[in-house]
Amino acid sequence: MTDDSSDAPGKPAPGGQAPRGQAMWGGRFSDRPDELMQAINVSIGFDRRLATQDLEGSRAHAAMLRKAGVISSEDAAAILQGLETIGQEMAAGTFPFREEFEDIHMNVEARLRELIGPAAGRLHTARSRNDQVALDFRMWVREACDRTTAQLKALQGALVAKAEAHVETLTPGFTHLQPAQPVTFAHHLMAYVEMFGRDASRFADARVRMNESPLGAAALAGSPFPIDRQMTAEALGFDRPTANSLDSVADRDFALEALAAATICAIHLSRLAEEIVIWMTPQFGFVRLSDAFTTGSSIMPQKKNPDAAELVRAKAGRLLGSFTQLAVVMKGLPLAYSKDMQEDKVPTFEAFDALELSLRAMTGMVADLEPDRERMAAAAGAGYSTATDLADWLVRELGLPFREAHHVTGAAVKRAEQLGCDLPGLPLADLQALEPRITAGIYDVLAPGASVASRKSYGGTAPDQVRSQINRWKDILA
Amino acid sequence: MTDDSSDAPGKPAPGGQAPRGQAMWGGRFSDRPDELMQAINVSIGFDRRLATQDLEGSRAHAAMLRKAGVISSEDAAAILQGLETIGQEMAAGTFPFREEFEDIHMNVEARLRELIGPAAGRLHTARSRNDQVALDFRMWVREACDRTTAQLKALQGALVAKAEAHVETLTPGFTHLQPAQPVTFAHHLMAYVEMFGRDASRFADARVRMNESPLGAAALAGSPFPIDRQMTAEALGFDRPTANSLDSVADRDFALEALAAATICAIHLSRLAEEIVIWMTPQFGFVRLSDAFTTGSSIMPQKKNPDAAELVRAKAGRLLGSFTQLAVVMKGLPLAYSKDMQEDKVPTFEAFDALELSLRAMTGMVADLEPDRERMAAAAGAGYSTATDLADWLVRELGLPFREAHHVTGAAVKRAEQLGCDLPGLPLADLQALEPRITAGIYDVLAPGASVASRKSYGGTAPDQVRSQINRWKDILA
Amino acid sequence: MTDDSSDAPGKPAPGGQAPRGQAMWGGRFSDRPDELMQAINVSIGFDRRLATQDLEGSRAHAAMLRKAGVISSEDAAAILQGLETIGQEMAAGTFPFREEFEDIHMNVEARLRELIGPAAGRLHTARSRNDQVALDFRMWVREACDRTTAQLKALQGALVAKAEAHVETLTPGFTHLQPAQPVTFAHHLMAYVEMFGRDASRFADARVRMNESPLGAAALAGSPFPIDRQMTAEALGFDRPTANSLDSVADRDFALEALAAATICAIHLSRLAEEIVIWMTPQFGFVRLSDAFTTGSSIMPQKKNPDAAELVRAKAGRLLGSFTQLAVVMKGLPLAYSKDMQEDKVPTFEAFDALELSLRAMTGMVADLEPDRERMAAAAGAGYSTATDLADWLVRELGLPFREAHHVTGAAVKRAEQLGCDLPGLPLADLQALEPRITAGIYDVLAPGASVASRKSYGGTAPDQVRSQINRWKDILA
Amino acid sequence: MTDDSSDAPGKPAPGGQAPRGQAMWGGRFSDRPDELMQAINVSIGFDRRLATQDLEGSRAHAAMLRKAGVISSEDAAAILQGLETIGQEMAAGTFPFREEFEDIHMNVEARLRELIGPAAGRLHTARSRNDQVALDFRMWVREACDRTTAQLKALQGALVAKAEAHVETLTPGFTHLQPAQPVTFAHHLMAYVEMFGRDASRFADARVRMNESPLGAAALAGSPFPIDRQMTAEALGFDRPTANSLDSVADRDFALEALAAATICAIHLSRLAEEIVIWMTPQFGFVRLSDAFTTGSSIMPQKKNPDAAELVRAKAGRLLGSFTQLAVVMKGLPLAYSKDMQEDKVPTFEAFDALELSLRAMTGMVADLEPDRERMAAAAGAGYSTATDLADWLVRELGLPFREAHHVTGAAVKRAEQLGCDLPGLPLADLQALEPRITAGIYDVLAPGASVASRKSYGGTAPDQVRSQINRWKDILA
Repeated sequence: MTDDSSDAPGKPAPGGQAPRGQAMWGGRFSDRPDELMQAINVSIGFDRRLATQDLEGSRAHAAMLRKAGVISSEDAAAILQGLETIGQEMAAGTFPFREEFEDIHMNVEARLRELIGPAAGRLHTARSRNDQVALDFRMWVREACDRTTAQLKALQGALVAKAEAHVETLTPGFTHLQPAQPVTFAHHLMAYVEMFGRDASRFADARVRMNESPLGAAALAGSPFPIDRQMTAEALGFDRPTANSLDSVADRDFALEALAAATICAIHLSRLAEEIVIWMTPQFGFVRLSDAFTTGSSIMPQKKNPDAAELVRAKAGRLLGSFTQLAVVMKGLPLAYSKDMQEDKVPTFEAFDALELSLRAMTGMVADLEPDRERMAAAAGAGYSTATDLADWLVRELGLPFREAHHVTGAAVKRAEQLGCDLPGLPLADLQALEPRITAGIYDVLAPGASVASRKSYGGTAPDQVRSQINRWKDILA
Repeated sequence: MTDDSSDAPGKPAPGGQAPRGQAMWGGRFSDRPDELMQAINVSIGFDRRLATQDLEGSRAHAAMLRKAGVISSEDAAAILQGLETIGQEMAAGTFPFREEFEDIHMNVEARLRELIGPAAGRLHTARSRNDQVALDFRMWVREACDRTTAQLKALQGALVAKAEAHVETLTPGFTHLQPAQPVTFAHHLMAYVEMFGRDASRFADARVRMNESPLGAAALAGSPFPIDRQMTAEALGFDRPTANSLDSVADRDFALEALAAATICAIHLSRLAEEIVIWMTPQFGFVRLSDAFTTGSSIMPQKKNPDAAELVRAKAGRLLGSFTQLAVVMKGLPLAYSKDMQEDKVPTFEAFDALELSLRAMTGMVADLEPDRERMAAAAGAGYSTATDLADWLVRELGLPFREAHHVTGAAVKRAEQLGCDLPGLPLADLQALEPRITAGIYDVLAPGASVASRKSYGGTAPDQVRSQINRWKDILA
Repeated sequence: MTDDSSDAPGKPAPGGQAPRGQAMWGGRFSDRPDELMQAINVSIGFDRRLATQDLEGSRAHAAMLRKAGVISSEDAAAILQGLETIGQEMAAGTFPFREEFEDIHMNVEARLRELIGPAAGRLHTARSRNDQVALDFRMWVREACDRTTAQLKALQGALVAKAEAHVETLTPGFTHLQPAQPVTFAHHLMAYVEMFGRDASRFADARVRMNESPLGAAALAGSPFPIDRQMTAEALGFDRPTANSLDSVADRDFALEALAAATICAIHLSRLAEEIVIWMTPQFGFVRLSDAFTTGSSIMPQKKNPDAAELVRAKAGRLLGSFTQLAVVMKGLPLAYSKDMQEDKVPTFEAFDALELSLRAMTGMVADLEPDRERMAAAAGAGYSTATDLADWLVRELGLPFREAHHVTGAAVKRAEQLGCDLPGLPLADLQALEPRITAGIYDVLAPGASVASRKSYGGTAPDQVRSQINRWKDILA
Repeated sequence: MTDDSSDAPGKPAPGGQAPRGQAMWGGRFSDRPDELMQAINVSIGFDRRLATQDLEGSRAHAAMLRKAGVISSEDAAAILQGLETIGQEMAAGTFPFREEFEDIHMNVEARLRELIGPAAGRLHTARSRNDQVALDFRMWVREACDRTTAQLKALQGALVAKAEAHVETLTPGFTHLQPAQPVTFAHHLMAYVEMFGRDASRFADARVRMNESPLGAAALAGSPFPIDRQMTAEALGFDRPTANSLDSVADRDFALEALAAATICAIHLSRLAEEIVIWMTPQFGFVRLSDAFTTGSSIMPQKKNPDAAELVRAKAGRLLGSFTQLAVVMKGLPLAYSKDMQEDKVPTFEAFDALELSLRAMTGMVADLEPDRERMAAAAGAGYSTATDLADWLVRELGLPFREAHHVTGAAVKRAEQLGCDLPGLPLADLQALEPRITAGIYDVLAPGASVASRKSYGGTAPDQVRSQINRWKDILA
């Protein structure tokens, strides 16, 4: 996109067969732009993805110009009819995207001129490519946020459904990837529901903030025509028009913020993906994924490569790379529009393509994955994993000072090691030899399931707590 | 910070002279940790910045434990008294920060034990360093957001005040750093008010999202003690407790989101800084900064180096670097707590230090800078800057088709070039020679001031529009 | 690309009409991979850019297998003939790239099977897609480095040629974008020749380091067949085979290092681009670019938007974003091959596309740009720019203590300010009033040209020095 | 650091009690710099780390000035004596670092003046802070590269030593974190020796490229004094002086390239760290680390948290963040010196601090870690891990077509599954039932050890191959 420092209509006026130099910026430039310039400058290869938004914006603009009396009803009707035709051509795949017209805006305008003649030029009244691209791109990002939000809900739905089936399924809670305390698999999955909930909330906030229409800012200074920016804003689903015309064409916050939210979301996905990769190893064997999300070896039947999870994990790089790219582009740019900003679209398109694919693939994997209850439960109970429950019991039930409770627990673990048993297998006599007041009630907390059931604090892993969170989320997602 | 996979009290119990290995994780580890381990592991050098938050969190926790009957009133009183003393020691600079106690949490606990004896250990009931550091750091980030928000308002205030003085001051509106259309200096400054307004809004949203208390998540699974997480949440100014204990200790979204918002803000600052650097060149000469924000040469009196602006511009690197750092740290981390997350604090501290300093310096510069009205006005009027106004007038007043209006304008500019005058200086006769219906009314739009005044669309650069935005912001900032 | 943990031939054996699941990993996987999996997994959309390298690698491998007696001469001949045909199909654009065969390697193998039958399978003996993709991609990066190096030389050539024409052209040397001392335009341009020289040198070093052949590492462990890795390495232009088979398939250093070098190069380009943007402003007016590299306004004849320079400046974002992306992908990846590594290609392709385009556009701009000698010379002489020359003269010629020399200089500047003249215009009497020993010889250093000529230290801006550097570079670039 | 656009001595001349404004840039600036300016501008807090380099550079400069006859022998002697005293004060910790003198250069000069009087000013002849900081920082980075190189060698040494002890130790070779083929632990470790070897080689190349002395470039244009840049370059260990004075003060490639190399190295470390974290899980149980590099739980004896490995893994974020930071700072900076460049030091210091600590900690961990041969060998043999060896044998020994060999292998695996045995346990009769020509010789490749031994291709995992690589590296590292 080349800015036009003008809201005058007709200027960039691409004619049919005119030499490109003339087509683009009139007759004063005698040289044909260099091929290099063509190669670096032309954006139709990627900004054609804004075609829908461009048409929608133009329809709203034309309707407003007519209502404001800036263009005649006849011209408006011709323009709207022509835009309709173009929309059909695009839907049918017959629209002629042409590099000679540089960007999506000029391609549409040129085609419109071919279809309806000089009236096409009037559409450009009180508008510039500067506010036009700001509008189109903003609408694209808004839609991407909406799509992403829907995909996040689908993923949360899959997690909640899987959690619901595993409220009692034990699994180790890890710190440092070392088993630390037993939790339930549902509880673990619901941690991700929280993360993706924050992601959705971030996209929602970003959407509110970006939902202002730049249309009518013109080249940068606003327009002398009696335009109604409120009207176009409403027609295009915006809450209001932007309040400063320079900012309107210089701002790419909406993309930056959306990319930041997308990056954080991708990091969440990478964490779950990493866990799936680890859980899928034969050493862990915590979950199985079907052939739909793995690849294998025809002669090594047990090999199930978690390709989809690995690719999701890797996409975090794409997202952070895209945010970095746009941040660097915008760093130190003077107002208002600079051509650097043409480099805003590709990273944003790529980022959302990657994120949406990742969300969908992860949703599929979550629905697909089957935990191995036995292996997870065994791992949850290994390694004296309820030692802290024992110590807590001594404090809570016997009122032991902490240091002493701790000492007794250490001795109990040592005794279990000697006997080659785990804590729930330790005979009461052995426990009482360490602390005579210990009763059989202690076994209520020594089994992993008992440990889990005891953690009833709000947000804790006790099945009732988790069930209540599942229900809360089912309401939210309904 | 080392996690303790336990909410048992007393475990990490640092004793006075005990060898460090024992102090930190009890007697089973016979080797003294390697010096390398010490060097890479100890965090007190930077997490001491969480001291205030740590004390505040501990006070709330102690009060809750007492109310819940988990600890006695006597112990609670002793703990609160001890924490009070520690707070005083910190205020007085006499608190002994000791590397042997690794992190801020252990330093406080060790000191508390020295002050009040074994009761100190009861403070750790139903708490772990995992939820404790999540709490402390979250409170720090929340405060940083609040400080930043206040600084953003101060900067906006300075911009609005400067704008108010320059509602009629003409300056070129640039695209591609080429003068495109006249605007007012106020309008230009107000574009930044919009940007910083979005920044403040982003911090506000982040604050809402982060304002949940992780305290009580314990090591990762919640607690079997009858704790009241709602009570501590309220006492510490949170809206509610977090809903999933695993997520509570595994989540660093609050820092990531704050860093993303801070990065976008720093990019805005870098844009204004770049403009100041350019405006300060003798070639532009648009603004002057006093000696307070420049350095110079003792023998080259005209040299005014905009050091502060350059440093602000450069800080965008620090911010993006910090976001990148934390994003990379979190990428692919399995739940719940991993030691990697200790690397969350330094980039966050550094980022906010840099951002706050930048905001304050920029506020000072904005208040300090004096535009050179003559040079800006002259630049605003040079280069046939109102050619588009001429074309617009022909369309609006004479109903000329755009193509023809455009043709006439090009011819008028050419004539002005021949005569060596600018557009407002072009005799009416010359204009009428091009288009007989042109009247003297055209001069109403050819002067830069007239051009500016004509752009009355909402958000446009017309002084009335800008005044109305200034007033809107004065209300918001009041 | 899916790894195959096998160097056995025939395994991935894509048959003509076989269902995809079977085609890819044999009969044990009963489900058809999910469409999502297809969407996220298939790489032929981008890795088709490795087609040439894939064929070349296969030719070398087949020849080696034959020489080593692993395959028969007949099979080898058939394979080579088939590969020849495929190469022709690709050149003609008739090669059928098919998504069902996932990646470039399988597409080639499937087509080969169609062309020559089962012998195609023997090509996969002692080879895996893991070492195959490592080879292909490494060769692609190597060629990209070579192309970039050639483009760097072309850009340096353009800079040297332009410098040669401006050895005596004065321009301000800036610090903080404030004129500091006069330099020559040639000297300024030659600074970039140094930068791009370091860039070329970095690519050269990267090339040496990457120039080891991974072919023969097979899936990850090496091969039990009597292969000759030295022979394939030589045939493919490598210095030697890699020394560790695990590293061979796990390593993407070659891409990371090339991207790092490319990023630094892009930063250099962004600096020159920024300068062009600033020099092109009417306020500076230091250089002109023709219509070939600018866009304009049909009715604002003086407006010359430096679009190409802005786009080059922005590309630095793409480059840093790409390096970031790959670095994040590789962070924390266990050995040997993980599917994450499929995400190595797109950022690398995009980065080099952007860099090569930037280099070519910048070369064009440098050749195209015309300095305005008068404006640059005037700016070089303004602002008492030779005050330091005056002080140096007093020290050097009169042996004045520095503090005193400095004092006299300050007074001289003040006197010039009073008289409204610049330093070379200051009458000798006025200078002698400040320091009687001053002679007319002082005027030899007060004019900008004299100042420049005096800076004869090695690497200084004196024309002789610059000429000698130009000659040095002409020899290097010859 | 503030640049001084002058190579005149005495200008920045900090006097003892003079108000700071005067101290720094002479009497023309009447206002005292704002506190904010002080806060953002002062660099002594971090650039004091350049003290050693600053003194060394000054010594070489003074000696050269004397030899060139620019300063007298007496002055030179006084200066060298004063610098000697300052060096001693720094060593003793008594040197007064003062914020009022802004940076390390001014602190040294001010102290020198206090010690030797006005002669101190002569040291600044033909030098500017612009070339001075470029010199000091370049020397610091060069030393950091040297330290890092030494640490890389130590780490490689530890890896080679550990590998030597495990040439026959079997372990699974993973793809997608799924066991794919048996390899030896030595082979796995040696893959990292290759990576760290490339890292060392990158630092070596960077060192060669950066090893040019900027001293004598003065402010930006070179010097009119008869200085000998070759002499100072040699005295300071540089290969030659830089060839362009503008580039000399504007260039930070040396830091960028060193940071890029450091980032790639940190990514390698993160990969090994991730593997250690995974290997340390009870599920894998492949290695043990002593208490020196782990933390634990006093009551969960089996818990060994690999804190050091996690911290090393996380440091990759710091490194990439630092490279990003400096790249963003440099993006789009016009020549020559801009104050932005003061932001070059902190990320570089922090990055090398983090990298050096990581390298040392990893060296300690590698030396410390003890593989569990039994668990690794068992894992290496599980899952029909030698199926590809079986297929290869059929091709190699019986000349079976690949497709058929593959079919037989699949059937053999299926038979083993039925019998509940692994491949080496499959009776010969069962194998012959599938393919009568199979002989007992096939068992030579079915055991994991046999599989490993058979992969004798160059760089393969066969013990002889690995031993030969170990010997090669022992020679290199000797």
